[in-house]
Amino acid sequence: MKITVIGAGAMGSLIGGYLSRANEVTLIDTTQDKVDAINAHGLVIQETDGSETHVAPRAAVSSEGLAQQDLVILFVKSLFSRAALDANRALFGPDTFVLTLQNGAGHDEILREFVSPERIVIGTTQHNAAFLAPGRVRHGGSGVTCIGGVCGNDGLQAVADAFAAGGLACEVSDNVQKLIWHKLFTNVSVSALTGVLQMKMGYMLDDAHGWWLCERLIREAVAVANGDGMGFDAEEIVDEIRRLLVTSHEGYTSIYADLRDGRRTEVDTISGAVVSASHRNGVPAPSHEFIVHLVHAMEGRAAYEG
Amino acid sequence: MKITVIGAGAMGSLIGGYLSRANEVTLIDTTQDKVDAINAHGLVIQETDGSETHVAPRAAVSSEGLAQQDLVILFVKSLFSRAALDANRALFGPDTFVLTLQNGAGHDEILREFVSPERIVIGTTQHNAAFLAPGRVRHGGSGVTCIGGVCGNDGLQAVADAFAAGGLACEVSDNVQKLIWHKLFTNVSVSALTGVLQMKMGYMLDDAHGWWLCERLIREAVAVANGDGMGFDAEEIVDEIRRLLVTSHEGYTSIYADLRDGRRTEVDTISGAVVSASHRNGVPAPSHEFIVHLVHAMEGRAAYEG
Repeated sequence: MKITVIGAGAMGSLIGGYLSRANEVTLIDTTQDKVDAINAHGLVIQETDGSETHVAPRAAVSSEGLAQQDLVILFVKSLFSRAALDANRALFGPDTFVLTLQNGAGHDEILREFVSPERIVIGTTQHNAAFLAPGRVRHGGSGVTCIGGVCGNDGLQAVADAFAAGGLACEVSDNVQKLIWHKLFTNVSVSALTGVLQMKMGYMLDDAHGWWLCERLIREAVAVANGDGMGFDAEEIVDEIRRLLVTSHEGYTSIYADLRDGRRTEVDTISGAVVSASHRNGVPAPSHEFIVHLVHAMEGRAAYEG
Repeated sequence: MKITVIGAGAMGSLIGGYLSRANEVTLIDTTQDKVDAINAHGLVIQETDGSETHVAPRAAVSSEGLAQQDLVILFVKSLFSRAALDANRALFGPDTFVLTLQNGAGHDEILREFVSPERIVIGTTQHNAAFLAPGRVRHGGSGVTCIGGVCGNDGLQAVADAFAAGGLACEVSDNVQKLIWHKLFTNVSVSALTGVLQMKMGYMLDDAHGWWLCERLIREAVAVANGDGMGFDAEEIVDEIRRLLVTSHEGYTSIYADLRDGRRTEVDTISGAVVSASHRNGVPAPSHEFIVHLVHAMEGRAAYEG
């Protein structure tokens, strides 16, 4: 398959790198030194067992000269989705699938501005990765990648096969929205709170008030998801996130790091996705509304000159 | 009148100092150097026009040896109300009025543990003050002090007269709860948010998300107050707080300072008073519930060793 990954951050590099073992893959990234490093020396994926996976996708700073692709995977930070899609319109033909595996939810809304719904694929992956240096990423957790089409799954098995050929387990799912919601529960509770409180994940378990806030956010999000007919059991989700906080006690989140460093966060596609669904289906989400504005108010402090 | 003020912080010193010009006033404070300074050199109140008011209340670290008082005014930080009342029970006789002018609301609940409701007086004052040094406070804003009895106003004119004799305008009000709510609106919005965001008051006006949060908190609190039959106009209150943010643009609040310095805040008698009323009268206050736990979770960070 001809595949282009837009955004060669940690996750884009990881997934694009694996895919390149069996497909014709181009990584597009606006950072010149990342592109140069990958073209000069290939991409090194440092695995959790200490071994290294060496792959050699092509890299470029733009899609200039590239033909329409079979598959485009969007892996930029959600804040830049619209700009990235706009700059790379030339890649989208009538037969191009455009896949988002970005964190959070609601990314398909932006994709609809650029491609027809039949070509939009959403999904979630259990892989995670960290950026080490240009041309070098660390592969954290592994697992299954699940994908599903916004208008059904016609033709998607070929995408899953391309993933499998590259060494990435991939399933076409009839219920990908539920998987996305499921992953969202952790982000809209733990990630948002670690950001606001500027503490590691374990604090949400160890501090009684941190846990109260976490549970409030989980239960509100589950109620909204169930308003979309997802049928989650709130107690199960609460227990699951409590266990995650035990195993990831020392972990930090991207909202934490973004706020710490005075950057804009992805809160609009994380907690904001719950708020959008709430406004759509009428199940109230006052705490998510509150935390979205709170995170934005915190982002605004860095540039404030009042 | 025989008056004891428990808590010789900025406000206790100011009000006690003025009252001492026409009454027999004792200030009780557990800080020995404050007590010593007042007993040795009196109390200097630095007025906004640059002049100084010199007064000479008695001061003591405990109520030992003091007779039952005509009026006891509680002016400690609300976190210490119960301990302060317990340590000074000897001051309360059957004819003693016990007055709280503390910030926030719900202080009468703790007073009920120590004195009968007929003797409990609540109120609000437009004075404010800042601590400068032992025996020295700065008098900020001035204005009327309003008081009202929890079980009616019998005998309270004598208290108002004692205030007036000391130079403090004081009214006995039939609707003191409404005045307390009114003052609470600013504290539960602006004070709580400046604490959480660690920004000056003006940020709540200048940042669109800060103002969204502020307005959400105001409107929720007004709805809860109106659930108690207070009859506030939400638009008026929103406008009033917007104007306050213009005039107090460079101001900071006590919750801001407490969280900055890793101290416990008075959030339970500020935002927590809205939550209590909400639980009592059934008008929802999810944002105030959220912010109470958020402030407590922020307080907990200082001592966390996770």
